[in-house]
Amino acid sequence: MNREEKKKKALCVMSGGMDSTLAAFMMREAGYELLAVHFNYDQRTQTKELACFEAICKELAIETKYVLDLSFFKQLGASALTDSTIDVPVGGIEEGVPVTYVPFRNGIFLSMAAAIAEKEGASVISIGVVEEDSSGYPDCRESYIASMQQSINLGTKDETQIEIAMPLVHLKKSQIVQKALELHVPLELTWSCYKNEEKACGVCDSCRLRLGGFALAKTQDPIEYE
Amino acid sequence: MNREEKKKKALCVMSGGMDSTLAAFMMREAGYELLAVHFNYDQRTQTKELACFEAICKELAIETKYVLDLSFFKQLGASALTDSTIDVPVGGIEEGVPVTYVPFRNGIFLSMAAAIAEKEGASVISIGVVEEDSSGYPDCRESYIASMQQSINLGTKDETQIEIAMPLVHLKKSQIVQKALELHVPLELTWSCYKNEEKACGVCDSCRLRLGGFALAKTQDPIEYE
Repeated sequence: MNREEKKKKALCVMSGGMDSTLAAFMMREAGYELLAVHFNYDQRTQTKELACFEAICKELAIETKYVLDLSFFKQLGASALTDSTIDVPVGGIEEGVPVTYVPFRNGIFLSMAAAIAEKEGASVISIGVVEEDSSGYPDCRESYIASMQQSINLGTKDETQIEIAMPLVHLKKSQIVQKALELHVPLELTWSCYKNEEKACGVCDSCRLRLGGFALAKTQDPIEYE
Repeated sequence: MNREEKKKKALCVMSGGMDSTLAAFMMREAGYELLAVHFNYDQRTQTKELACFEAICKELAIETKYVLDLSFFKQLGASALTDSTIDVPVGGIEEGVPVTYVPFRNGIFLSMAAAIAEKEGASVISIGVVEEDSSGYPDCRESYIASMQQSINLGTKDETQIEIAMPLVHLKKSQIVQKALELHVPLELTWSCYKNEEKACGVCDSCRLRLGGFALAKTQDPIEYE
């Protein structure tokens, strides 16, 4: 294979959830060689998410994987996902930024991904952000991600040119489920629950969004709920 | 003190070097209450830099300090500062991005600083970047920092509005020395050398820039050189 035929590399930021997994499958579909990065940040479901990430990487035959341990968010606190004294809300999705918001989490994830992409020569970073049909996190907005792409290109070497792909940003959860089924994404290997690691709780915002998507797509979620 | 009289908070990103120390003193001069963040990233001079940071915080009577351990850059490698198999260049400053460049380091530092600033209610983050009279790192450019400020404001809560102050960005090293003397910055507590922790080497890019600044300012650097 000569230089021209070599596949471009996409670094996929992957939590082990449905959205970032679909984004990775879409990057494979688009012809990229996949690399992956996963963050352990002492979130409640860290062990489960990591196991899902590993299983999904195996499915995608991803060889270059970064698993990064970030104690920072625990030290910072201020989120129900990383501070065990703040309960995960289970009463239904409300207006505004919820207490599960982790301050500038995607900013930190994308900055680290940019450093990896620069080192590895990846031309794309993929992230599974969803803007409208989501928990309302400010770091999942398209305007933010587009600005961050510009910042990354200004703050790295001139020859480093990175595009941040966010193929799900304007999809509804039901469209995400449909697209995942089309691409044969192993949804049974993904995890979305904020609270539990054994059986999904079904009532946190993330479970509600996921279950709502499956219901509208008229199909059964293959994972177990309590 | 009522709400109106309460000082605004500035979170100072501080390495223990001359530039970020001066930036912090300038923020104090401007009337801010100071908070500080320092990063240990397994760089060669980590122990010395941390000791300098602590001593400077004591001088500035900073109470809210974050010292963050980031194993990421060591894991990533690719820089003479974090990879002991790559020698720190000592032959003089050359054109282009040097091997001491740590991929998107300031992007990662500023992202974490943004998360802290959002939690602590700081309206300013200060960073001691210098654009022209520097090692030529892309993440020290004004255009990058300005873009990053926009990204941070788009990616955090709507009520979070953060300015990134870079008071040194267009100063020459000699002007930095002069300004530091004016503000009685304890330069004997700062460390710039990339290589050593006992006596500064005097020949790495960072020592050369610092010594050049002192020479032009016609004053003596109070730290010891080998």
